[in-house]
Amino acid sequence: MATQAVSQPPWTLPASSVEIPVLKVYNSLTRTKNEFVPREGRRVKWYNCGPTVYDASHMGHARNYVTQDILRRILSDYFGYDVHFVMNITDIEDKIILRARQTHLLERFRADTKTLSPELLADVRDAWTTHVRARVRKGLVEADAPADGAEWDAWPALEAKFKDRAWRQDALRRDEKFEMHFNAAARARSALEVGQSALDARQGGVDVARQLIDEAADVLAPALDAKLGATVTDPSISRRLSSYWERRFFDDMDRLRVRRPDTITRVTEYVPEIVVFVERIVDNGYGYALEDGSVYFDTRAFDGAKGHVYAKLEPWSRGNRALLEEAEGALASTTGGKRSPADFALWKASKPGEPAWESPWGPGRPGWHIECSVMASAVFGESMDIHSGGIDLAFPHHDNEVAQSEAYHECHSWVNYFLHTGHLHIEGLKMSKSLKNFITIDEILQRYSARQLRLAFLTTLWSAKIDFSESLMTGEVKNIEATLNNFFTVAKALVSQARADADASAVPGRDARHGFDAPEQELTSALHAAQDAFRAALCDSFNTPAALDVLRDLVSRANVYVAARGAGAVNAGVVERVARWVGAMLRVFGLGEGERDGIGWGQLSADGGGALDREEVLMPYLRALSTFRDGVRARAIAGGDGVAKDILALCDGLRDDALVPLGVALDDQEDGKALVKLVPPAELVKARDAKRAALEQRAAQKAAAQAAERERRAKKLARGRAPPWEMFRAPHVPEGKYGGWDADGVPTTDGAGAELSKNARKGLLKEFAAQRRVHEEYLAWRREEEAGGREAE
Amino acid sequence: MATQAVSQPPWTLPASSVEIPVLKVYNSLTRTKNEFVPREGRRVKWYNCGPTVYDASHMGHARNYVTQDILRRILSDYFGYDVHFVMNITDIEDKIILRARQTHLLERFRADTKTLSPELLADVRDAWTTHVRARVRKGLVEADAPADGAEWDAWPALEAKFKDRAWRQDALRRDEKFEMHFNAAARARSALEVGQSALDARQGGVDVARQLIDEAADVLAPALDAKLGATVTDPSISRRLSSYWERRFFDDMDRLRVRRPDTITRVTEYVPEIVVFVERIVDNGYGYALEDGSVYFDTRAFDGAKGHVYAKLEPWSRGNRALLEEAEGALASTTGGKRSPADFALWKASKPGEPAWESPWGPGRPGWHIECSVMASAVFGESMDIHSGGIDLAFPHHDNEVAQSEAYHECHSWVNYFLHTGHLHIEGLKMSKSLKNFITIDEILQRYSARQLRLAFLTTLWSAKIDFSESLMTGEVKNIEATLNNFFTVAKALVSQARADADASAVPGRDARHGFDAPEQELTSALHAAQDAFRAALCDSFNTPAALDVLRDLVSRANVYVAARGAGAVNAGVVERVARWVGAMLRVFGLGEGERDGIGWGQLSADGGGALDREEVLMPYLRALSTFRDGVRARAIAGGDGVAKDILALCDGLRDDALVPLGVALDDQEDGKALVKLVPPAELVKARDAKRAALEQRAAQKAAAQAAERERRAKKLARGRAPPWEMFRAPHVPEGKYGGWDADGVPTTDGAGAELSKNARKGLLKEFAAQRRVHEEYLAWRREEEAGGREAE
Repeated sequence: MATQAVSQPPWTLPASSVEIPVLKVYNSLTRTKNEFVPREGRRVKWYNCGPTVYDASHMGHARNYVTQDILRRILSDYFGYDVHFVMNITDIEDKIILRARQTHLLERFRADTKTLSPELLADVRDAWTTHVRARVRKGLVEADAPADGAEWDAWPALEAKFKDRAWRQDALRRDEKFEMHFNAAARARSALEVGQSALDARQGGVDVARQLIDEAADVLAPALDAKLGATVTDPSISRRLSSYWERRFFDDMDRLRVRRPDTITRVTEYVPEIVVFVERIVDNGYGYALEDGSVYFDTRAFDGAKGHVYAKLEPWSRGNRALLEEAEGALASTTGGKRSPADFALWKASKPGEPAWESPWGPGRPGWHIECSVMASAVFGESMDIHSGGIDLAFPHHDNEVAQSEAYHECHSWVNYFLHTGHLHIEGLKMSKSLKNFITIDEILQRYSARQLRLAFLTTLWSAKIDFSESLMTGEVKNIEATLNNFFTVAKALVSQARADADASAVPGRDARHGFDAPEQELTSALHAAQDAFRAALCDSFNTPAALDVLRDLVSRANVYVAARGAGAVNAGVVERVARWVGAMLRVFGLGEGERDGIGWGQLSADGGGALDREEVLMPYLRALSTFRDGVRARAIAGGDGVAKDILALCDGLRDDALVPLGVALDDQEDGKALVKLVPPAELVKARDAKRAALEQRAAQKAAAQAAERERRAKKLARGRAPPWEMFRAPHVPEGKYGGWDADGVPTTDGAGAELSKNARKGLLKEFAAQRRVHEEYLAWRREEEAGGREAE
Repeated sequence: MATQAVSQPPWTLPASSVEIPVLKVYNSLTRTKNEFVPREGRRVKWYNCGPTVYDASHMGHARNYVTQDILRRILSDYFGYDVHFVMNITDIEDKIILRARQTHLLERFRADTKTLSPELLADVRDAWTTHVRARVRKGLVEADAPADGAEWDAWPALEAKFKDRAWRQDALRRDEKFEMHFNAAARARSALEVGQSALDARQGGVDVARQLIDEAADVLAPALDAKLGATVTDPSISRRLSSYWERRFFDDMDRLRVRRPDTITRVTEYVPEIVVFVERIVDNGYGYALEDGSVYFDTRAFDGAKGHVYAKLEPWSRGNRALLEEAEGALASTTGGKRSPADFALWKASKPGEPAWESPWGPGRPGWHIECSVMASAVFGESMDIHSGGIDLAFPHHDNEVAQSEAYHECHSWVNYFLHTGHLHIEGLKMSKSLKNFITIDEILQRYSARQLRLAFLTTLWSAKIDFSESLMTGEVKNIEATLNNFFTVAKALVSQARADADASAVPGRDARHGFDAPEQELTSALHAAQDAFRAALCDSFNTPAALDVLRDLVSRANVYVAARGAGAVNAGVVERVARWVGAMLRVFGLGEGERDGIGWGQLSADGGGALDREEVLMPYLRALSTFRDGVRARAIAGGDGVAKDILALCDGLRDDALVPLGVALDDQEDGKALVKLVPPAELVKARDAKRAALEQRAAQKAAAQAAERERRAKKLARGRAPPWEMFRAPHVPEGKYGGWDADGVPTTDGAGAELSKNARKGLLKEFAAQRRVHEEYLAWRREEEAGGREAE
């Protein structure tokens, strides 16, 4: 038809008039915000330090893992990176070994104890004395400390002093676990006294004996471990403890709506790789084995060699003995021989009672830091983009990890970005058992929803210390939640109102206006500014408090707009757009459920489960259930004759009338237990109609077929011809019968202008719906006819 | 603690080792793929041509709007742009006016007709003759065309020829609507014959008369319109029709899961702005008014002036008279006076019977093209990034729109990217009423789900012609759907299997391996390659067929992996990661529901509604309902004494026992209608427990408080002390009682190694759950104790 000889005019590539912010992240390796550039295009290799699994997860875990989850969601759901998120589970560690061994020994001791013997009392008293000497004393000044052997007699005086608050706080300053140790001693002592009385009264049965053991558990367990620890050689004892707590950890994370890692690595599953890794470090000249079978990293050999640097994250912490010792673990060998105090264990020789794997250096187990080096290398190879963890881990754990890995790979940027999440305090104080503010995830979820917790974490920079407090939760967090909930409720109401009747006012004349004037343009501009500011906030090292403020400000501007316009004049579309965007961004933070652009953020039940619009989904069914019960109950209360018959009729009605439109098929079975099936309602109705049609067809005479066809068509024409929007206007009804109509042409007022009754309206709406159906059938049939349906007759 | 004098080593910004693909889009302005650069950073201003609303939406609409929806979702959900998507509704247009007027006149004529009079027969016959002369004749060769006045007698001969297929096809080549017009004439003629017989038999009642009108509607309506069209002056007649079909359009879009536009603009709401816009074009020298009150765009004055170019999209179509005439509309004035045949109406003078607005040029209405120029300018200002629409609209509609807008703004790049969706064919042929392959959205959704339709559209490039066929739907589409469904089913099963027992096998020894070996690394690499290829495909102008192939290939690689490894050795985590990513990408295409990274894509009901895991949510409640009904029914069937009393007990049981753990509160009211509330189950249980505790407390003697406390603690200790994972091992049970345990330490076999019976296992699991609860209480209590709970006693 046309020739392409004429060509299109030249086209110019547009340029953006505004600068597009780039993502920067606060990087612990530089202590500044660096531009984020992954090594392989849009893929992000991310290794996150996971938990050591030996007890219930607590608020510190919640803060750390929820915060990492938020960053991960932003990177993948907002910035669109393909993130590979790897997390380890530390299931070999001195804390695990000790906890498992002590629990095991205590349980066995208790089971073996059949009577309250003088020997038992002596054993417990010895344990008590050791406990006071080794632990309680740490908090005492020299003057208060009982002489060796005088502990028992000195105790009452100590208890008297303990009642003094100032004295206690003084002791706590010397040892933060002082109260814990003191209380354990006091409990055990009082149990010993009870035990002694029982023995004196010759009432030393098994129950009394075991009660003593229970009350003195905290002093007994270390004593038993010191004596018998070396005999506990079954490795499955600690494996069972760790695998149990690993499962509880993930249960808690699920409840907090933390996405599961893409890849989970466990130390126990990587021991052969760890041995090979350590061997290469030694081969490369950065490690050395000791006589006892331990292998250490040689920090001095490494630092400066081939451009290597030790302690890149916290070079100033290199000599921090306390941090170094703690990291080496409670079961660390006290054998000397390290070339430098900063050297740390790559491989620990296992003493009897400690799990052990074969190695070139004899039976042993991995040091703490090596696991992450090995497992991250196994999954990612020579480098990764992001390494994350709590700020506590920066030194020595992460610094040692980096040194090991760079020593193994002989590379210089094993990790490009280190993201450390900040501390969590509770009401201004470090969380600890001894401060009575230790809160498990299970406990906190009894008080707040997963969404509220996440909101709390979002109000603070991920890298900063958060102070988790009652006032934060009942103040700011509940405020934000209420603000958002209120806004979503208003937006939903406006939208459904608008869809129901906004066009109605536009129908009669030609004067409808678009309602997109200065106030709407302003709110639209506010939305656009918010989108830019939100992006800028997230690009600014995931600044979630600023991003949340952007959302709150936008919501308040939308509220002002709604109030200023008044419900009748509001442009619901503009508000809806704001609500959908806010909802989508909340979902990016992991705060919402359901469709990305749904209005609102769904309803979360208190324990973080629940589903979007669960209520909306359930309510029609629950109403059917309740109505049925009401009917049955009323009939039973009324009593009299025929109760059984009437109730059976109600049962049939539930199946045939109430549940069919809800798409529930109830198939009564021989055994009296109906089968429940969810079936699309249309299918149920269709099945019924098909049955009916088949019956009709059989009844019809073949001879009358053509006449019937003509008649049917005539009927269809007669019924379906009138457009539903015209059916209540002249000439279909007498002129002047009605005075006002809604958008669909259904009358709202009578000829005199009086509003129609609710019932009258209801009837008309029903008629309209029926007509709408037959009219659309009619139109379909017309199309067929026009296309020559007649030919086929 | 540490000094910061020592500083961190220098850090280098990483560089990506691979090139990151940039998004390019096929731009009709260049007919090539251009890099996509929005003018304002990450904001995309997008205007999409919406429907003219006067009839049911059909497959052509479905293809167009679903495809736009896919592109929009990719831009916003995958690439992360802040998209502002604007769509217009054309509610002033000749087709709307004609359809509304003819329907109105026909209805009035029918209502006014009370008997079958000779006059009526004469009127219909006149209309029939006009129809044959004006419309049927277009398809006939000269030899077949009846002479003027001889149409009635010539008809039987034509009907005989019509039976010949070759003859028909020949006629269709001359006029594609030939069959439609022919059939309308044949129907009307046969009705006229029936009417004549009835009149002869003196049976001309109102029913017969109206049946004649109905059968002859297609020939009568244009005749009535020609005679009386000018008398139809109520503008609300066409407004009602258009607003009705607008609502139906959005209903259909909702069912197709097409996101609603961010902003909807209607022509009728922008007439004042249109008048101002036209005035400025005239002022700028690019338009001229004619005597009759119409205003035209002066293509020759515009083309070349100040760097302007007319017809940037299809310069070679400039002189295409057929396209130009069609665009001017069925009611276009035939008055001459245009300066060039290429000139087009900016403003149409309205003749009587056509809706009219006041303007400087007299009563009139907007031309077709001007609406988009005005409304897009009203929302976006001087330019936009994307303009989209069906390829049919490229010329003259979009070319004229661009010319008008650039004439108004005196700019040169009103639109930077034009995205035109391709045609839709049905079984190889253009869809049209006359080809009997016209399918409404309502009809297609009876046969296929919204998801299947969307999948079909995704298999073809958005800009290419799609051939919608039975074989596409039952072949490729059902294949893809089944492949994905099967994969998700397998992945879900593997994941839940793994979570249930994978650790179990790892517990006993220390030899558990990570299961991340060569096959897993290969599948992981395949996933990464797929992520890159998927991104590359979408960057390549939204190449969805290639992107779908990437997903299918990955799924088949995952299936091969699963088959090769065997269920026992599969690393479920790797498969899960693949499944989550595939699900997330399907959601980007609008194919899935629910959480972004859920496994699978949710369940869509046939009509596109439905919700993720609806079944999972509902079933427990439905089971409660059904069980209650079973009980009531059984009791009623049994009959005898006490039916009423027993049924009331069942009613109470439903409320107190069955529904409480489901979180349903049923509050019985005075009026016999219970209130239904969804309450977190924990809350209901808590309320109960609180009540119980309060009762207990009152009952307890204050004097016995301390003793009771001691006893309670002892009890807790006794019960909760044993770790649940140890409770079925020695010393808690006799050594050798059990032989095998699962991950949690619950026995699987007895001491002799024989598998435990299901019932025995069930009992043990129950015991385990109870112990787990009390043990965790015990641990919490221990933490309190350690923290000095004793002090508070």
